[in-house]
This record gives sequence, C-alpha cells and structure tokens, in this order.
Amino acid sequence: MSQQTAIPEDQQQNKQREKRRQVVADLAPLLPKECLLHTDEALAPYECDGLSLYQSTPLAIALPYTVEQAQQVVRYCHQRQIPIVPRGAGTGLSGGALPHEEGILLSLARLNAILNIDPQARTCRVQPGVRNLAISEAVRPFGLYYAPDPSSQIACSIGGNIAENAGGVHCLKYGLTVHNVLEVTILNAEGELVTLGSEALDSAGYDLLALIIGSEGLLGIVVEIVVKLLPTPQQAKVLLAAFHTVEEAGDAVGQIIAAGIIPGGIEMMDKLSIEATENFVHAGYPLDAAAILLCELDGIDTEINETTGRVNEVLLKAGAYQIRVSENDQQRELFWAGRKAAFPAVGRISPDYYCMDGTIPRKQLASVLNQISERAAHHQLRVANVFHAGDGNLHPLILFDANQPDDLDRAHQLGNDILELCIAAGGTITGEHGVGIEKLGGMCSQFNDLELTQYHAIKAAFDEHGILNPGKAVPTLHRCAEFGHMHVHNGELPFPDLPRF
Amino acid sequence: MSQQTAIPEDQQQNKQREKRRQVVADLAPLLPKECLLHTDEALAPYECDGLSLYQSTPLAIALPYTVEQAQQVVRYCHQRQIPIVPRGAGTGLSGGALPHEEGILLSLARLNAILNIDPQARTCRVQPGVRNLAISEAVRPFGLYYAPDPSSQIACSIGGNIAENAGGVHCLKYGLTVHNVLEVTILNAEGELVTLGSEALDSAGYDLLALIIGSEGLLGIVVEIVVKLLPTPQQAKVLLAAFHTVEEAGDAVGQIIAAGIIPGGIEMMDKLSIEATENFVHAGYPLDAAAILLCELDGIDTEINETTGRVNEVLLKAGAYQIRVSENDQQRELFWAGRKAAFPAVGRISPDYYCMDGTIPRKQLASVLNQISERAAHHQLRVANVFHAGDGNLHPLILFDANQPDDLDRAHQLGNDILELCIAAGGTITGEHGVGIEKLGGMCSQFNDLELTQYHAIKAAFDEHGILNPGKAVPTLHRCAEFGHMHVHNGELPFPDLPRF
Repeated sequence: MSQQTAIPEDQQQNKQREKRRQVVADLAPLLPKECLLHTDEALAPYECDGLSLYQSTPLAIALPYTVEQAQQVVRYCHQRQIPIVPRGAGTGLSGGALPHEEGILLSLARLNAILNIDPQARTCRVQPGVRNLAISEAVRPFGLYYAPDPSSQIACSIGGNIAENAGGVHCLKYGLTVHNVLEVTILNAEGELVTLGSEALDSAGYDLLALIIGSEGLLGIVVEIVVKLLPTPQQAKVLLAAFHTVEEAGDAVGQIIAAGIIPGGIEMMDKLSIEATENFVHAGYPLDAAAILLCELDGIDTEINETTGRVNEVLLKAGAYQIRVSENDQQRELFWAGRKAAFPAVGRISPDYYCMDGTIPRKQLASVLNQISERAAHHQLRVANVFHAGDGNLHPLILFDANQPDDLDRAHQLGNDILELCIAAGGTITGEHGVGIEKLGGMCSQFNDLELTQYHAIKAAFDEHGILNPGKAVPTLHRCAEFGHMHVHNGELPFPDLPRF
Repeated sequence: MSQQTAIPEDQQQNKQREKRRQVVADLAPLLPKECLLHTDEALAPYECDGLSLYQSTPLAIALPYTVEQAQQVVRYCHQRQIPIVPRGAGTGLSGGALPHEEGILLSLARLNAILNIDPQARTCRVQPGVRNLAISEAVRPFGLYYAPDPSSQIACSIGGNIAENAGGVHCLKYGLTVHNVLEVTILNAEGELVTLGSEALDSAGYDLLALIIGSEGLLGIVVEIVVKLLPTPQQAKVLLAAFHTVEEAGDAVGQIIAAGIIPGGIEMMDKLSIEATENFVHAGYPLDAAAILLCELDGIDTEINETTGRVNEVLLKAGAYQIRVSENDQQRELFWAGRKAAFPAVGRISPDYYCMDGTIPRKQLASVLNQISERAAHHQLRVANVFHAGDGNLHPLILFDANQPDDLDRAHQLGNDILELCIAAGGTITGEHGVGIEKLGGMCSQFNDLELTQYHAIKAAFDEHGILNPGKAVPTLHRCAEFGHMHVHNGELPFPDLPRF
C-alpha cells in the first residue's frame, strides 16, 4: 500500500457507510426484514469462517428463505457488479467464506430442506444448507447413508461440501464429494438457474458438474443438489496395528492397497499424537509405538472376516509388532474415539497448533513423513501427525506457542516447508480444506503461469465480471509475480499468504 | 447454402488442392516423410471413423512418432488457424474423428508406448495410442487390470476413451473413464503442454481433468495419461435370470441395486435379441423368455458366494421364473458369449440396423422400454434391446431395410423418438458413444440456450479461435435456432443431424 495516495481513515469509513446504506436500501424490497443483516452486532458473527485468523466485514448479509430470494440478490449484485461471497455453515478451514468488504455475504443456511428421498434410485435431493450428517439421518430408515464424512459433518453443510469437494475418513473407499453427487442446480453470475449433471449415468456435454465441485464458490452458487446414497454396510471392523518405526507404518499403507484391498479408511497417528490422545481419552493405544494404523473394513460379514485375515497378514509382514481387531461395535468405537479426539488432545499439550493439509501419492508417505521430521527438527518445533493415510492426505499439526513471537515465525516457515515437500513429492497443497484465502501463495508454487491462465479463463467463462467470491482460490498472475519476486530476490517466506496465526 | 454465390465445383477443387499443397509444404520440414499423408490413396482410409455414414477428406494427415512432433503440428495450426481433428483408433461411433475438409487430421496412433507401471501405487502411465486392452495385458503379471471395458476394447485407444469418457459392461461397479484416470497431459490449442490432475488424491484448482474427459477433442489433445489400476477379482460368477415380461426384468435391475448390491455388471436382452443370439451362438438362453438379465458378481470367493444367494432372492421376488448360476469360468464365458455376439446376431436377422445410445435413470427402465415398444409399433418397425441395464444405458437396435426408402425414414423417426424419450425420462442423448457429429441436433433438444452458451464459453476458455475439432459435440445457438425453427414451424424431423443411414 502506498501511503501517499491513501485516503484518510475516517473518509474511508464514511464512504463504506454510504455504500452500506445504499446496498441495504436496494436489497430491502427483495427480502423479508429478518433476511437482511447490516448492523455491526448482526454482522460480527460472520466476520470469518473456520479460519478465524482472517476477518472482514461485508456491506450486508443476505439470508434468504427461498431460491427465488437468493436469485433476486444475485441479480441485483450482477447489475451493480457487487461482489458476492456465498457461505454455508462457515466451518471451512481455508477462509473461503471470508466476507468481502465491498460485497454481500450470501448465506445459504436457511435453504435447508430435504426435498426428496428416492430409496430405489438411492438418491436424495436437498437444498445446500442441509447439514452433511442430516442427510444420513434422514435416509437411515431406508438402510442408506451419504458416504463423504468430513470431521465437521455434524455442522458443515452439503453446499459447503460441494464448494470444497469435501472428503473424510471414508473417502478412500467411497470417494470425495465429486464422486457422490449426481446433479446440482446453480445460480450463475447473472442470477440464472442452470442445472449441471443429471440423474442418469452420464451426461452429454462437458462435465461442468465436476468443474463446479471444489470450485469454492467462484463459478456459481449451488442452490439444489442430488446426492448418491449407499447402503449402510452390514458390519465394520477396525484393526489397530502398532509399529516401531514411522517408515514401516507408512509402507504398510501402500502394501494393503497393493494387496488389492480397499479398506473403508486407513488412518495413521504418530508417537506424539498417540501420547496426547491416550492421556486424554484412554482408547488403549500402545504408548511404546512409533506409529499406529487404524484400518477399518466394512461390508458383508463373510467378506470382512476373510479380508481381516488378509490385512492382518500384510500388517505383520510390514513389521507390525502388535495387532488388535475390534471384537464388537463398542470396541470399534473405542478405537476410533482416540482418532476422533486427536486434534483436541494435541491442543492440550501445546498452547497453539496449526493444522496443515496437503496430499501426496500414498507410496511417498514414509519418505515425506521423515522429511517433515527433519524440517521440524531444523525449526526446533514439534509436529504431531494424525491423518488419512490411505489417501495420502497429511494433516501435520505444528505445535507452537503464539506468545513466543519467534515460535510463530518458525511454525510459519515449517508450514511452508511442508507444503513445498508435498508439491515436490508429486502431491498438492490441499487435500480437503481448499485454497480459499489461506493458500493463494501455495497456488503460485504449485501451478505455472500457463495453468493459472487456464484457471482464469475458466473463471471468466462463468463469471465475466468476477463478482463471485473474488480474490479466493486462484491467485492473479500479478500476485504470483510479486510472490516470486519476493521469494527469489528478497529472501521472503515462500508463502506470504499463509496465516500468521 | 445459397446457390447464387456458389463457386463452380472445379474452382473449389483447385482452391482445395492449392491449400493442400501449401499445408503439406509447411508441415514437411516438421515431420519425418512417412508421418505426413496427403495423397488420395493415403487419405482414403481416414475419411470416417466408426460412424461410416459421414465421410470427409482432410487437407493432410499427421501421424507423429513423438509428442514433440505433435506439438510442432499443433503450433503450426495455431499460427495459421487451421482446424485440427485428433484421432485415436477411429472406432468412435458418433463421428467425433470425422476429418475437417479445411483441416489437419492428427492421428495419435503412433504414440503407443506404455511408459511406466507402478504396481504399488497401482497406476500406469501411457501414451494416448495405447489400446485399452493392451493396458490390462501389460499389467496382468502384477495381478492388476484397467477397469473400463468398452466393447471395442481390443481396438480402441485410451486417448479415444478419454475423448468419449468411455464406459463398458463393468462401469456400473468400477465407473467410467473419468473415474479411472488420475492425470493427463494435453497439448492445448496453442501447442503448449499442460498437465491436469495429479497422482495424489485430490488436486488444488478447478477440476480441469474431469472437464477434459469426455470433451471429444474440443478442449485439448491428450498426449500422456496416468490411469488407475485395480486388482484382478479373485472370482466372478454370472446369474442368468429369465422373465415373462420386460417390466419385471427392468424392475429387477433397480431392486438389485436397491438391495445394496453393486454387481460387476447387469446386462439385459429382450425377446428379439435372445432369439437372434440363440440361433447364432447357442449360449443356452431360454427362448420362451420375454427378457433375460445377465448379472455378474466379482470379488473374493466368500463375498461372491453370499452375494449370489442374495441376488438370487431378489430376482425370484422380482418375478424371475428361471435362474441359472455359472458353475465355472467356462460356463460364465458361455453365458457372456451370447451377449457379446448380440449385435452381429441381430445383423443376421435384418438387412440393416441402427444402434442407438441413450441413458435414463435406472428406475425408469421398464417404463421407457414399454414406450420404445409403443413407438416401434407405431412406426411399424422392430427393435431389439440389448444393453447395460445396471447403468440405465440403452442400446436399442432399430431393424430396417435400407433398400426400402420408407423403412429408412421410419427408422430415423423412431430413433428420434427414442432419444426424446430418454430426455423426457430425465436421461441424456448419449451414454457412451458421444455426441460427435451425429447428435448435434439432440444437444439442441437436451440443453437450453443458457446451457449451450456456458459450453461455448468453456470452449473459448480453452480454444479461443476454435481450431480444435470444430463443428463437433456442441452445436452453435444459430444451428439450434434453425433446428427449432424447422422443428416447430415446418414439421421437420426433430433431429436433422441424425444419420440418415
């Protein structure tokens, strides 16, 4: 920012107030009174999403009850070229729903109806504000469920899941959101309704459905969704395997898959996570292990019984020194209780932690985990690893103390190093948390100008004037040039956009 | 075409010859001599793909040995804005590889190397000219295979599979091409290499990989591919179930899936197909059945044994009056032999047939099959149905005699009716054969102006000047307007672009 041309702060505030007054006056006739928020108190809770480091206040918030009301808002914003930031449940971890100061925050939370359940076709038609878990609850009487299960599934909405292409423990076997959605209807940047995909196997035309999923609200605003449902598995079992080295555990993951077995999920925890967790929830994890694997098998009884034996064999051969198999649902839940409490457990042993999210090819697990250890030692920090090993989706938790300024910088640098390691291993800078505002710098590292230009062309093909969630997910070439400039010439941090806690 | 401004035919031919001479002179330095075809004899075999109804001669054909040579050709075409039609094995059924008279046909057939097999990651890196079946053959020593199995798999290339998002008998369980490809490298319209997707679980940025798959060569030219491999199933069994009515068979399909079972494939044949096939290959099909289902179960032994019992129950409950289970691989292959020979078998009972391809939601099977019967009776034609029932992917074979002009018109009308029925049932005008040149009219029926405009915006985002496979897959709005005009006002056929045999 250049100080010479800066407008005095109070003038800026006046300008902002005037803009807000105008927008509120314009939107008021389009929405019921309670659907338009604009006072400081009403706006405050929406200043950030799950990434609370970034905060911003929008001009106003629209909370429509109906698709038609949402459409009115989008049409208005299109006419005036006012930015729109769509928001689901606000549980996102990369700041994708961070409000735009010059824009409208459009919350889809009140579009929360389950419109239709078709047990024979095994589909469910829902509005975007429906919570992920609410779908499974609604279809349970039919023996069905919706497979993708992000850890926020009790709170996060299906609309947000689509924006982020959400995964979860079971996406190893059942795929990401993109594999479990058949059709969406969006409001495009002009406020027109467009349906993408279909309830049939395949669709003619380009695969715009896949393109929308994971596009973080930059290409359209999802207002209706048809998801695929799966039959609830007859049974599930968990194997808990303990290893003396992280390498053995990492390699075991690849060997299970290479043996032709696709477990429901394979989660890995390292020594620090095991200790933190065991002291917290007493799940019975072996404290002498360098790493444990939790491998869930689900399906029909006979299949699971046979597969359990095969996985057991692979684990032993890979070097597991102890293997326990859950004998009933109670024990299975106990095995999982530790994993599920791992993040808060780590929160108990460190004043602060920063949850990273990156993905690598499965076969690189052992090597990348070792390199993370080395980088952590270099920065004199501790890292707890607890993650979706089967998917190669790492969640290193960097432990630090925000009250020690130096700690914070080193945590920041280690985070950068970890994402660079992911890219170098042929992986990506995000597994399931998205790019949002958090990882724009990482995008500059992962993609070259040609690729970014292609992304911008796609954006322009959907949103010519750039009113949908501007400034997120895909950095401008200019920004990347500045980033590269800093990176190369001034010895600055490689990811200037990463949170500074 | 307006006759007033038409150029005399010999002048046109001279002009075409001059263009050819120029293009050949320009390309000659870029390619080894044997990689550039331009004589009438050399061009003739490439006049059409699997849809031989449409024929056209390109200016020249490039058959590069290397990606660099292909890149030179694309760069040249980009500079001169000369259309490029990419071609794989030429087995496509919708004319997607029909040459452009003013363009270059770029055959990828010689880029046919298997570059790498990674048994642990269960991936294989190949060039686009590798035949679908050749991948499975190459990885068989590792107990792996590539799942999508279009019926042309012995001949079709993986590059063409990507262009068409090819399916096959087993895509019910294992997905289409889009579900089995991790990464592709394309030459974009400027001739630059761009890599889409990655070997990691998920990729940051928009899902351009899914967008490319099924885009029929309009967005880029695929020059390298990483496919997912699956472990060869331990065992497979086929149940052959006979029904007294088509409705019962159709409903049984939905009931198997609703019971939580995903078979490897479910194929359906109706009375006419059964008769034609049984007289041809003697697979032991019941001649008194109105319809049969072939349901393949694959997996581990114990799983199959249990699931066979469950499918058997569902089939009986759905009204099957006879069920046979293959007792060994020999019998399984016999059961399949009939299905695989069904198209040639139908060719024996009718002078000509026209293979339709459309997709409907599975639950609509019985209803749509009935409506097809009604439409066939109305047009006084016979239809043999043999198709991927589990996917709702219909392949009605319309029987006619091309020597009877009236027959041909009625076949044409019935074909149109069938596609309209698919759209009305919530399905699409193509399941696995693509749009190509064949179904441009159908696209006008299926999509509205808003949707088509979005497709054109996507095309422009990849190929500003429209040099990649122009005139295929997505009709212009102008063309649809003309089509609608004819459709509504002049009582013309709804799909003027459908083959007239």
